[in-house]
Amino acid sequence: MTLRRLFPLALLVAAWPVFAAGSGVVGENLLWLALIILAARLFAPLAQRVGFPAVLGELLLGVVLGNLGLIDFHYFDAIARDPIIMFMAELGVIILLLQIGLETRLGDLVSVGARASMVGAVGIVVPFMLGAFVAGPLLLKGLDFNAYLFLGATLAATSVGITGRVFRDLGKLKMPEAQIVLGAAVIDDVLGLVILAVVSSLVQAGTVSLVDVLLIIAKAVLFLGGSIAIGRAMAPHLLRQASRLDSSHSMLFSLVLVAGLFMAWLAHKMGLAPIIGAFAAGLLFEPVFLKEFETPKLVQDIEPLLAGDPLHKQEEVRAVLRRHTRHQHEQMIEPIGYFFVPVFFVLTGMQVDLTALADPKVVMIALGITVAAVVGKLVAGFAAGKGKNPWLVGWGMVPRGEVGLIFAMVGKNLGVMSEAMFSVIVIMVILTTLLTPPILTVLLRRQKS
Amino acid sequence: MTLRRLFPLALLVAAWPVFAAGSGVVGENLLWLALIILAARLFAPLAQRVGFPAVLGELLLGVVLGNLGLIDFHYFDAIARDPIIMFMAELGVIILLLQIGLETRLGDLVSVGARASMVGAVGIVVPFMLGAFVAGPLLLKGLDFNAYLFLGATLAATSVGITGRVFRDLGKLKMPEAQIVLGAAVIDDVLGLVILAVVSSLVQAGTVSLVDVLLIIAKAVLFLGGSIAIGRAMAPHLLRQASRLDSSHSMLFSLVLVAGLFMAWLAHKMGLAPIIGAFAAGLLFEPVFLKEFETPKLVQDIEPLLAGDPLHKQEEVRAVLRRHTRHQHEQMIEPIGYFFVPVFFVLTGMQVDLTALADPKVVMIALGITVAAVVGKLVAGFAAGKGKNPWLVGWGMVPRGEVGLIFAMVGKNLGVMSEAMFSVIVIMVILTTLLTPPILTVLLRRQKS
Repeated sequence: MTLRRLFPLALLVAAWPVFAAGSGVVGENLLWLALIILAARLFAPLAQRVGFPAVLGELLLGVVLGNLGLIDFHYFDAIARDPIIMFMAELGVIILLLQIGLETRLGDLVSVGARASMVGAVGIVVPFMLGAFVAGPLLLKGLDFNAYLFLGATLAATSVGITGRVFRDLGKLKMPEAQIVLGAAVIDDVLGLVILAVVSSLVQAGTVSLVDVLLIIAKAVLFLGGSIAIGRAMAPHLLRQASRLDSSHSMLFSLVLVAGLFMAWLAHKMGLAPIIGAFAAGLLFEPVFLKEFETPKLVQDIEPLLAGDPLHKQEEVRAVLRRHTRHQHEQMIEPIGYFFVPVFFVLTGMQVDLTALADPKVVMIALGITVAAVVGKLVAGFAAGKGKNPWLVGWGMVPRGEVGLIFAMVGKNLGVMSEAMFSVIVIMVILTTLLTPPILTVLLRRQKS
Repeated sequence: MTLRRLFPLALLVAAWPVFAAGSGVVGENLLWLALIILAARLFAPLAQRVGFPAVLGELLLGVVLGNLGLIDFHYFDAIARDPIIMFMAELGVIILLLQIGLETRLGDLVSVGARASMVGAVGIVVPFMLGAFVAGPLLLKGLDFNAYLFLGATLAATSVGITGRVFRDLGKLKMPEAQIVLGAAVIDDVLGLVILAVVSSLVQAGTVSLVDVLLIIAKAVLFLGGSIAIGRAMAPHLLRQASRLDSSHSMLFSLVLVAGLFMAWLAHKMGLAPIIGAFAAGLLFEPVFLKEFETPKLVQDIEPLLAGDPLHKQEEVRAVLRRHTRHQHEQMIEPIGYFFVPVFFVLTGMQVDLTALADPKVVMIALGITVAAVVGKLVAGFAAGKGKNPWLVGWGMVPRGEVGLIFAMVGKNLGVMSEAMFSVIVIMVILTTLLTPPILTVLLRRQKS
């Protein structure tokens, strides 16, 4: 007997047989979550065996689940629209960006800051131009100029979630190219918001208020600069205070999680994407701030045994212990990630509507638009500067993922985007999202050898 | 830019300033979760410092948050009614019972089975009788007989969540008394459902269908017996198969979680409480089934250093490593627990309406009913048999928690329970729920000395 039944149960008692059979949707969510986590977990090693990152397995799983309606199996249709599962997915991508933030050193990010800004700016401007002024008018003739503008905006989007996850799955988050892509993707998330605002405003009012645009940019700069500056100034003190109350690892775990959720909320309040806040929160926890938190029980138990012993490998054993404890805060929210992150990627896959592939003419146009989408971002890769692999950076920016779908959705709802154009964009999103993980894998492997 | 905005955003673009200010409720949930986790985490060490289990801190926090409306602060009012937060709370108690199941050996439970059944049965029958035939008619004169029946049913309820959490917080889950209480509480959860069905049916139809009652019992026995028998027969094979695919700890973690969610759903489908299913799922993972899963990286790294060294404390170091890895599967879902479990207890606390305490006459009657509620369960403690501390067992059964509130809610919605009687029950629930943690703490401390 559980809390959730509090209200439904009161109603259900009136219809006892229904109650006895279980009260529907919320209960069903338990099964859905179990299925998503299980399927993603079983897919991951299979994907890895073929050499691809686990995220590809999750995305493809989502595509399959989301399109079972094609063979008249509609059980999963409700998942993608369920607000609770959607919130879980949202938490998933927040947790993912928090993890990526924890594994990123602010110093590394700052050192690639100028390059990342360049890549970000080029990666927004070039695809936008290509979409609005070249590929759009060329491939989708006779549409309203506003439609081309929206197409450009969609091509400008970047899905930091997909790319970050690929680099993370392959253990490459710390390489300079990954840092540049991360920085650029954060900048693009802000610029994407600006473009969407501008384009939406143009479509609706015919004009753009410069004040509104500047306001969005100001808020973003204020949030990112302010929260990181204030956060990093306060973090050491707050962490020391908290460790005095309880210096266990579980306290630190909760603080990391709370910081992630809080900053995600704050970003959201400032009109930014919550994931940007979660990423910024991850940057606040430098290993050096965490020395007050106790080492895990295991280390405490082994240390006295070592100390009293004339063991010549003593220092090596200590080094192993140190290595594992130092990295622990980076991995500490991993278990939460195993729970939520697959929900996000499976749901992203489920948004993909394969019926868009039914019309060969639409597919041809979509291939053209996809080329523009890829080329636009690859150009940005060459802004990464000497010594960096431009292809890695460029492809890192290619996936449009859920962001591209959101942009297309907005356009469709504003009436500026036709059904056909929407299908074209969905195909472009499918291709850029699903091609990138394997291509990045191949590029990274070649880089190594 | 995230998935959750997919649909709301399309609407919000129509009203750009609103969008820029953030899209409301779902975003707000991020803040609420952060506040609940943070507050619970900061309260816990304070409660422990005074010697009380952390759960008391979370419950009291909930009571405070839920009653801030009294000083005209209504920010938190929406939390307790938010379906997403309610689902999180539901997940919290499911995770908690899964944890408790993981830490319970089926063998231990079977060995106290007969005693637990006795305690469970007495703990249902005596409080029901006391409520329906003694305390009710005596203290709440002139009410309908159905109202007394409902009062009896409410007094019969047991909240396994609260009690399990107290024993767990104090590290006493493995003591025989805790095992008896756990077994009895599981039985009571089923019997409570039967009583609620019978009483509701009597109130509504004036009769009870014996078939319906037997059906509930049959389903419960079938589910518990069947799932544990089939589950334990299949678990070793399924786990071996899964470990061949991926023998990492994260795979095992996901399997445990999936089993918990799946069995919670199955229990729910059978008309039982999801937490019973989660508990049963925890019982499926015996340490011996898990030997195929790899030992953590740390142990792998240290082992070769030990092997090549003439260290006379080598075996002691190994023993420490063994101890920590053996228990690891029991603690592996702990992090998920830190996230969700407090949400459940804070929300349970929030259900408590302190305005019930405003009328001294109601409070006096409530104290009388509380005495009946406590005495009824303490009597059950003496069914635990020789060598067991009857007070520990008895008090372990006392908290009515969210289950008592649900029963009262059903009665209120059926029109059988007056506002005054509802208030009386709310006070009884407050007292039994909040008094039990400190009393159990004192009893356990005295037991030790």
